[in-house]
Amino acid sequence: MSIDVSEIGPIPAAWTRRHLLGLEDLSVEELNLILDAAEMFKEATGGCTQKIPVLTGRTCANLFFENSTRTRTSFSLAMRRLGGDTVDFTASSSSTSKGETTLDTARNIEAMGVQVVVCRHRTPGTPHLLSKNLNCSVINAGDGAHEHPTQGLLDILTIRQKRGSIAGQTVALVGDIQFSRTARSNIWGLKKLGAHVIVCGPATLVSPLWRELGVEVSHNLDEILPRCDVLNLLRIQFERQSTRPFPSVREYAHLYSMNRERLEKTKGNVLVLAPGPINRGVEIATDVADGPHSAILEQVTNGLAVRMAVLWLVCGASARELE
Amino acid sequence: MSIDVSEIGPIPAAWTRRHLLGLEDLSVEELNLILDAAEMFKEATGGCTQKIPVLTGRTCANLFFENSTRTRTSFSLAMRRLGGDTVDFTASSSSTSKGETTLDTARNIEAMGVQVVVCRHRTPGTPHLLSKNLNCSVINAGDGAHEHPTQGLLDILTIRQKRGSIAGQTVALVGDIQFSRTARSNIWGLKKLGAHVIVCGPATLVSPLWRELGVEVSHNLDEILPRCDVLNLLRIQFERQSTRPFPSVREYAHLYSMNRERLEKTKGNVLVLAPGPINRGVEIATDVADGPHSAILEQVTNGLAVRMAVLWLVCGASARELE
Amino acid sequence: MSIDVSEIGPIPAAWTRRHLLGLEDLSVEELNLILDAAEMFKEATGGCTQKIPVLTGRTCANLFFENSTRTRTSFSLAMRRLGGDTVDFTASSSSTSKGETTLDTARNIEAMGVQVVVCRHRTPGTPHLLSKNLNCSVINAGDGAHEHPTQGLLDILTIRQKRGSIAGQTVALVGDIQFSRTARSNIWGLKKLGAHVIVCGPATLVSPLWRELGVEVSHNLDEILPRCDVLNLLRIQFERQSTRPFPSVREYAHLYSMNRERLEKTKGNVLVLAPGPINRGVEIATDVADGPHSAILEQVTNGLAVRMAVLWLVCGASARELE
Repeated sequence: MSIDVSEIGPIPAAWTRRHLLGLEDLSVEELNLILDAAEMFKEATGGCTQKIPVLTGRTCANLFFENSTRTRTSFSLAMRRLGGDTVDFTASSSSTSKGETTLDTARNIEAMGVQVVVCRHRTPGTPHLLSKNLNCSVINAGDGAHEHPTQGLLDILTIRQKRGSIAGQTVALVGDIQFSRTARSNIWGLKKLGAHVIVCGPATLVSPLWRELGVEVSHNLDEILPRCDVLNLLRIQFERQSTRPFPSVREYAHLYSMNRERLEKTKGNVLVLAPGPINRGVEIATDVADGPHSAILEQVTNGLAVRMAVLWLVCGASARELE
Repeated sequence: MSIDVSEIGPIPAAWTRRHLLGLEDLSVEELNLILDAAEMFKEATGGCTQKIPVLTGRTCANLFFENSTRTRTSFSLAMRRLGGDTVDFTASSSSTSKGETTLDTARNIEAMGVQVVVCRHRTPGTPHLLSKNLNCSVINAGDGAHEHPTQGLLDILTIRQKRGSIAGQTVALVGDIQFSRTARSNIWGLKKLGAHVIVCGPATLVSPLWRELGVEVSHNLDEILPRCDVLNLLRIQFERQSTRPFPSVREYAHLYSMNRERLEKTKGNVLVLAPGPINRGVEIATDVADGPHSAILEQVTNGLAVRMAVLWLVCGASARELE
Repeated sequence: MSIDVSEIGPIPAAWTRRHLLGLEDLSVEELNLILDAAEMFKEATGGCTQKIPVLTGRTCANLFFENSTRTRTSFSLAMRRLGGDTVDFTASSSSTSKGETTLDTARNIEAMGVQVVVCRHRTPGTPHLLSKNLNCSVINAGDGAHEHPTQGLLDILTIRQKRGSIAGQTVALVGDIQFSRTARSNIWGLKKLGAHVIVCGPATLVSPLWRELGVEVSHNLDEILPRCDVLNLLRIQFERQSTRPFPSVREYAHLYSMNRERLEKTKGNVLVLAPGPINRGVEIATDVADGPHSAILEQVTNGLAVRMAVLWLVCGASARELE
């Protein structure tokens, strides 16, 4: 189950970045290059189930200062599907507690001969700091409430595959927007590609300031439903909040849960996304999550495809610089 | 140290299962198919020390909701000896705490393109639930007090190798039977293959209800010793018990510990097994554990062989279905 | 990025050890064999960034009873650069808590078909115990305050590369000497290869008894600076100490921190090493750590090279014994 890689040529000449730090910086052409490469890898590997060894001998280090099984596993599998090696360097067992700086930890990992560092950190800008001080490639896997570019890309890829295009689509991001790096990366990418974006949720989770990013702000899901082509249901991050931003989960679900009743208010072909892990009965009802409008599991597969594409592109750009 | 796989043909036509959920469901023919395949792999790989890349490009996910280094490591090594990849998805770092259902977690992992999910869960029937809802293969690595089929198989393989056959053997399972999935899998497999099985331990750990599975129940080890061909010494799972099922460890050891004195009451060629980790001085004395009757470390090697066989068979059945 | 291994022949005939337990036991010839092999691997793999599959099909188990991301990762990457597999067996998730002895844990891992066990344990002599009872190779990755041979070797390799030779060099080990296995391994190796070694630090951390190992003892860094060719700055292991061995970190830094002022008192070409993780502002100032005298990150790369060399040598000696 290994693919002949001779048909995969070098990376596109238009891709010149050694790092992927966020979608805010990317041009429309660069966004499309990643999405195209992701589709190519997804197709060539039978839905990301087979190997395509274009990065044999390269090593990717997961440098996660925040817990994440899902994203870390997706990056690890993506690297291995490309024939590469992975190594995990998690904060709980790392040297942070011994007083080492984040940059020193990253420099140490780089000195072990890795070509890519995938970094998650609660402090916004950490991947940017690393990218300025390391020679290897850096991929942002989530920096505080700032960006989570591969999550944004996988959401966008799923919309593109299901809709044919992003331009002209009305996409609502519903729920826990305030501290969401996923929302921010989605907004940057979707706006560049021509979508109309609505952020929707209780006023405690969706500030009017979001309008400054060029998006529509709503606190009433029922009101916007008839206009939406895509609903992206962000989970309420109970584990991060010290005070509840709403009186009860029941009240939140009453106003914002995507259920069958609400589905009937939408355009007939609305697309329902959720980054997961989903809380059934909170942001999404079971019959919607498992229903024909949901593309939740395709998002997961697309996550793998996007990460394969990004790893291939940044490694290719690095190798070209060294030539 | 890599084996030529051209001699390993397709899986036997008689094997049709995509999943291994327990030994209760298996026919005698199926049990023997696994044991034969395990012996074949053990021999072909020099005692499981070399690679035999028949599953190159396939990925196995360890989805463990209970801790287990030993079983997880054995499955990982088995998959890699077969040329495949593995990924660990442990509960402590997983999304369970974020309110995701077990099935959603498994569906997410499947959507990352894995071909096999090896599942351990405290709730009996969890692997069965997954097998009904996933397209990939599911292997039960222990579900509550229900079954632990690969442990049963490795015990049975060890008996077969040491005794030539299972039929006609008198096998005693001694110790912590009550909540033991290992005991249950052993009983199903051994009975089907024609052994006489005795479960033996204090009344608090061995209920008379076990007779319903067709086994003999004893509370007196010394009494049954002269009749036994095989003694399988299950460890007392102190870490699982809130109340001690006996007055003291010393009293337990006095009545049930397999020591040199008790060895003299057995048939001269009795075989001593223990699933490990062993508590020296509790269920087994040091001179017995390290003595000529013990096959404890061969069980570990056979565990690898059995898991290689099972991974090969379920992947093969899956691939055949897709043809 | 995979190297042709046909040019790498068998291991040198003079290397006969299946284990690497410490530098105390090694002859000068053996030390040089490891250092030469490390340089060969470093060069052949472009600074340890590429694969050189000389151990394909072999498996190395990391058996760490103390936390260590750095050393464990370095061994894992070294093994995979050599084409081998690795498996982690950490104490926190292992069976130690279930009453299993360390030797039984190691025997179990060996029975899973691994060829090398890399062991870290707080008890001095644990790797030696394992080496006497296992058939596979054992590498000491740190045993209590006794030895940490690969750390000593990577320090020595760095000195050799920067200085051309060890003989005649004056090397000061500064800081937390008292319970340092790194210091001990450095001393054994450096003395054998002809260096003059000074141990330097507060009297609470540097006992006069160290003189018995043939080294000079100093409590005054400023006094020895003009004589030193190499300064190896050991970190203060705050996390290990219940009582502080000095009044304050500030006072320690005042007396022993390597900063620009102190650098001016040294020979112009002094080499500054630190095993890491470093505490900037404590044992080393930022401008020294990042300055031209520092070889801290080359030590990390050399660590990979040394571990590749050691894995190759002990596996080769094992294979030769089996012939």
